[in-house]
Amino acid sequence: MPQIKNILFVMYDQLRHDYMSCAGHPTMKTPNFDRLAARGVRFSRAYVQSPICGASRMCFYTGRYVHSHGAAWNNFPLKVGEMTLGDHLRQLGVESWLIGKTHMRADAEGMARLGLAPDSVIGARVADCGFDVHVRDDGLNAEGPEGFYDEKRSPYNEWLKTQGYPGHNPWHAHANSGIDAKGDIASGWLLQNAVEPANIAEQDSETPWLTREAMGFIAQPHAAPWLCHLSYIKPHWPYIVPAPWHNLYGPADVAPATRHLRERDDPHPVFKAFMSNQPGQAFSRDEVREAVIPAYMGLVAQCDAEFGKLLDFLESSGRMADTMIVVTSDHGDYLGDHWMGEKDLFHDPSVRIPLIIYDPRNQANATRGTICESLVESIDLAPTFVEAMGGTPADHILEGRALTPWLHGQTPDWRGAVFSEYDYSAMALAGPGYLDVSPEDARLFMVFDGRWKLIHAEGGFRPMLFDVATDPDEFDDLGANPASGPEIARLMGLLNDWARRPAQRTTISKAEITGMRGKSRRYGIIIGAVTPDELAPDLRAKITGKPAKDYR
Amino acid sequence: MPQIKNILFVMYDQLRHDYMSCAGHPTMKTPNFDRLAARGVRFSRAYVQSPICGASRMCFYTGRYVHSHGAAWNNFPLKVGEMTLGDHLRQLGVESWLIGKTHMRADAEGMARLGLAPDSVIGARVADCGFDVHVRDDGLNAEGPEGFYDEKRSPYNEWLKTQGYPGHNPWHAHANSGIDAKGDIASGWLLQNAVEPANIAEQDSETPWLTREAMGFIAQPHAAPWLCHLSYIKPHWPYIVPAPWHNLYGPADVAPATRHLRERDDPHPVFKAFMSNQPGQAFSRDEVREAVIPAYMGLVAQCDAEFGKLLDFLESSGRMADTMIVVTSDHGDYLGDHWMGEKDLFHDPSVRIPLIIYDPRNQANATRGTICESLVESIDLAPTFVEAMGGTPADHILEGRALTPWLHGQTPDWRGAVFSEYDYSAMALAGPGYLDVSPEDARLFMVFDGRWKLIHAEGGFRPMLFDVATDPDEFDDLGANPASGPEIARLMGLLNDWARRPAQRTTISKAEITGMRGKSRRYGIIIGAVTPDELAPDLRAKITGKPAKDYR
Repeated sequence: MPQIKNILFVMYDQLRHDYMSCAGHPTMKTPNFDRLAARGVRFSRAYVQSPICGASRMCFYTGRYVHSHGAAWNNFPLKVGEMTLGDHLRQLGVESWLIGKTHMRADAEGMARLGLAPDSVIGARVADCGFDVHVRDDGLNAEGPEGFYDEKRSPYNEWLKTQGYPGHNPWHAHANSGIDAKGDIASGWLLQNAVEPANIAEQDSETPWLTREAMGFIAQPHAAPWLCHLSYIKPHWPYIVPAPWHNLYGPADVAPATRHLRERDDPHPVFKAFMSNQPGQAFSRDEVREAVIPAYMGLVAQCDAEFGKLLDFLESSGRMADTMIVVTSDHGDYLGDHWMGEKDLFHDPSVRIPLIIYDPRNQANATRGTICESLVESIDLAPTFVEAMGGTPADHILEGRALTPWLHGQTPDWRGAVFSEYDYSAMALAGPGYLDVSPEDARLFMVFDGRWKLIHAEGGFRPMLFDVATDPDEFDDLGANPASGPEIARLMGLLNDWARRPAQRTTISKAEITGMRGKSRRYGIIIGAVTPDELAPDLRAKITGKPAKDYR
Repeated sequence: MPQIKNILFVMYDQLRHDYMSCAGHPTMKTPNFDRLAARGVRFSRAYVQSPICGASRMCFYTGRYVHSHGAAWNNFPLKVGEMTLGDHLRQLGVESWLIGKTHMRADAEGMARLGLAPDSVIGARVADCGFDVHVRDDGLNAEGPEGFYDEKRSPYNEWLKTQGYPGHNPWHAHANSGIDAKGDIASGWLLQNAVEPANIAEQDSETPWLTREAMGFIAQPHAAPWLCHLSYIKPHWPYIVPAPWHNLYGPADVAPATRHLRERDDPHPVFKAFMSNQPGQAFSRDEVREAVIPAYMGLVAQCDAEFGKLLDFLESSGRMADTMIVVTSDHGDYLGDHWMGEKDLFHDPSVRIPLIIYDPRNQANATRGTICESLVESIDLAPTFVEAMGGTPADHILEGRALTPWLHGQTPDWRGAVFSEYDYSAMALAGPGYLDVSPEDARLFMVFDGRWKLIHAEGGFRPMLFDVATDPDEFDDLGANPASGPEIARLMGLLNDWARRPAQRTTISKAEITGMRGKSRRYGIIIGAVTPDELAPDLRAKITGKPAKDYR
C-alpha cells in the first residue's frame, strides 16, 4: 500500500478561492488544478487565519492563530521560541525545505538575547520560520526613494542578471513591467499597465523559474523524507504577466463585480475606511477591473500551466505514488468586489482560500474527486502534515485539526466555527485624520459558523454581521440592526470562549498534565495530613524514625 | 537627591495579606514590616495573577499574565523566548540576582530545540527565569517512595550537612521536623506536629540562613547596579518553626475562621471539590487551626525579625539611601477560612497579597507611611522596577503598570479591575471520580473591580460572584442568583475584553507600529495607483525610463 514519503506543500499568493474552473469560475480555466482536484479532495470552505501575507503565513507555518503567535501583520517579527511546522516534522526525521516566499521577518532582538547566530543551523531555521532554505525569495524587489522594501537580496533578481537582463533591478524593469507606446518602461506597479505583456521571455518569468527550482530540488537524492514548501509569488501584484498569458483573457472574461450600492450606504467605519483607500477607489472603477483582472487571470493560468508541468514531472518520476500534494493560497484578492481592492477584510473573496489535498494512500481512494464543505482553517495543515508523516500532532501547541479523516472518507465531529483576525494598526488608515485608533484597538476578529459571519472590531465600533444563508454575496451588514442582538451575542460568545483558550500552555502536553494528577504525594509532598495514620505505610516510613541528634 | 541604585525585591511564600500588624491583624506583631510600611507605601489591595507558587511567580518575573506566558501551574515550564524581568533590566545595565526560591521549571525541550546549553550564561538565565543565581533554593526537599520532589540538590540541605546535621535530608529531619514524646521524628509534614519546635538551632533554620546569604551578597563589591530577588520559603508549609518562635503564639492568638455554614449549602461544584479535599477537611477542624496557625504566626514572626536585621544592615551600610525595597508574597493561605486549606481559589485570604514598597527618592517623601487602596497586580512590579532604574517599560511586552505615580503622590487614571487565573488541570480533583474535566476546561478566571468579584469556570459550570460591599467576608456566592445576570455579564465583558488583548504582539513596539503607517510606498510598494500622475515625482522617476532591451 502506498505510504506518504514526501509532502509537496504548494502555496500561491493572493489566489482567490473561486479562480479555478473546478471551483466554478465561469471563464477561468485551470485544467491542472482541476487534475489535482480530481485525484484529491477540494476543501471548499477553507479560511485563512488572517487575510494578509505575513500574518497568514505565520499561521500556516506554526499551526497557530495570530492571537497565539503574535506576528500580526507583514514584517511584525515571529518571536523566538515559537515552534514551527519544521520543528514538528524534524522530530519525525522529516526535513522541511523552503522554495520561494514566506514573508517571515526574524525576531533579531530575541535571537540576540538568546545568542542565536543567524548563520548557525539553528539560527537560520529560527530566522526562516523553521525551514531549511533551498531558495528563499519573497518576491517583492520593490525600490523607492528610501531604498529597497526588502533588505534581503532577491535571488530571482540575481538570476535574471545572469541570464543577461540588464540593470540593477530586472525584477522590476523586465519581470514586472512592460513597454509603453513611447518605448518607456510601463511599470507593473501602475494598474493601467496590466494590459501590457511583461518585458521578459516567458520561461524567465518568476513562476517558471521557481517551478524549475522545485523540480531540481525534487530530483536531487534525498537521505530523508521531506516536506517541500513551494511558495509562489504569483498571482500577487504587480499585476502583469508575459506573453502569451497577457491576452489569454480579456474584458469579456471578467466576471461582474460582487458589489452593491447599498454597501456604500452608511457602512461600518472600518469598512468605509478600507473602501476609501487607494486600492478600493481604483478597483471600484470598471476600466481598472477590465485592465487588471485579465492580467490576474493570465497569472493564474501561468501558475496552472506550471503546476501541470510539475504534476507531469511527479508522475514520470514516480513521486505521485508517495507524495502528498497540497495546493492553497495565503489569502484572496477583492479585485473590486465590495468596492475593495487588495485583501485585509473578511468578505469571502479575501479570507476564503482554495485548498486541494491529494493523498496517495489507498485509504484516500474513496474521496478522490470529492468536495469537502466542512469548515477548515489554514492551521489544519500543520497537524495534517504531522499525521501524514506518521506522527501525533502536539495538540497543546498546534491549534488546528488534522484533515486526515476527511481525506479518508470519515466524518468526524468537527468545529462549529472558524476564526480569523486582522491587525491594521500599522496602516495609514488607522492613524490620525482617518480612523485614529490606538495600536491595541486597531484589530478585527472574524467568527464564521457556516451561516453567520461576525466581524468584531476593537475600539468601540459596532460589529458587522452577515447571514450568508439569505445574503450569499455579503451585501447586507446586519451589525447595526437591533434584531441581530441575539446572533451577535451568540457569535461573540464563540469568539470570547476562543479568546480565553490556553494557547500559551505549550510546554506540557495534555497527557503529561493528566499524568501529574495525584502524584506529588509519592514524591513526599504531604498537604493536609494531620496524623501518620493518614499516610501510606511506605510514605510514613520515609518521614519517621529516630533523629540522630536533638538540636532544639 | 537620592537616586535608586539597587532594588531589594523580597518575596515571602504563602504570606497572607492580613498577617501583619500594619495590616490590622488583631494579634500578630510584625514590627519590622511595619517599619518598612512607615517609610514606604503599603498597597492594601494587591492581587496575584494566580494563587499558586509557580504560576504566580512567573507572572512577577515576566510582568505578564498566566494567559500570556502559559506556565499555568507548578512545574509547567516557562517557555523559551518568554522575556523576563532580568532581560528588561539587563538592557539598562542592571544585574538581576536570585537568592532563594523561584519555582521555575526550565523548558528543557525548548532549550534543546534552540541549542541553549544549560551551563552557558544565556542558558542558565533562561533556565532560571532570567536571574543570575547567587543561591537558588526552592525550599521543598521533599522525599517520598518515588524519590525527591525537586530534582535539583538543595543548597540549604547541603549547608546543613556542613554544619554537622546528620543524615541525607536534614532539611526534613531537622529544619522541618520536631521530636515527639517517644523520641521519634515528628515530621512537619503532619499538621499535628506544628506545635513542636523544629529540631534545629534557630540560626540554622532556613529564614536566617537565607538572610545571611542576602547580607553576604549585598556586602560584596558590585560593579553594576543590581536587583536582588530575596525569595524566602517561609511561612509556606511544612508548618513548623524552631524555638523560641514555636510558642510565641498560642491558640488564644488564633483569629476566628472567616467561614460560614451557608458556604457549604449548595456550593459551586469547583469550590465544593476544593473544600472537600484533604487540606480543606483538615483546616475545617478547630484543633488543626489551633495547632497550625500559631506555628504559621511563629514563622511570620521569624521572617519579620530577620527582615529587621536586614533593615538594620541596610541602614548601617548606607544602602537605605539608594535601595528600593519591596516586601510581598506569591499568594496567601486559607488557614481554614472558607472551609479551605492551602490557596488555589480566589477568596481574599488566598489571592490578595501584602505589598509594601519603599522608594528612597525624595519624590516619595510625601507618601511615606501611607496606604494606597488602588487595585494593584503583581505584574505591576516589573515595570515599576524598570522605571526605578531609569528605563521605559516595554509596554508591548510588560502587561502591568508601573506603580511609580502612587509612590510619588500622584493619582493616575488607573485600571478598573484586576485579573487572576487558576489552572487546576494537574490536580487530582480535576480527574475522573471528582470533577472530571479536561485539561482545557480545568481553568478558572477571576475578575475583581473593587466591589464585585466574578469567578468564571471553564467547562460549563456556572460562575461564582461576590459583592464585597455588602458581603466583605465573601460568604454569599451570588453566581446562581438570576438577579446577578447584569453584573455577571458586565464582568464577563471585562474578562473577555482582556482575553482578546494582543498579548503576543511582543516583537514590535507601539511606537514602531505607528511609525510604519503610510511608509511602504517610500520603499516602492505601490498599491492601487493607476497612472504615473498619482505618484510623487521621485517615486515616479524610480519606476520609469527606457528599458535596456525588449524581451517580449
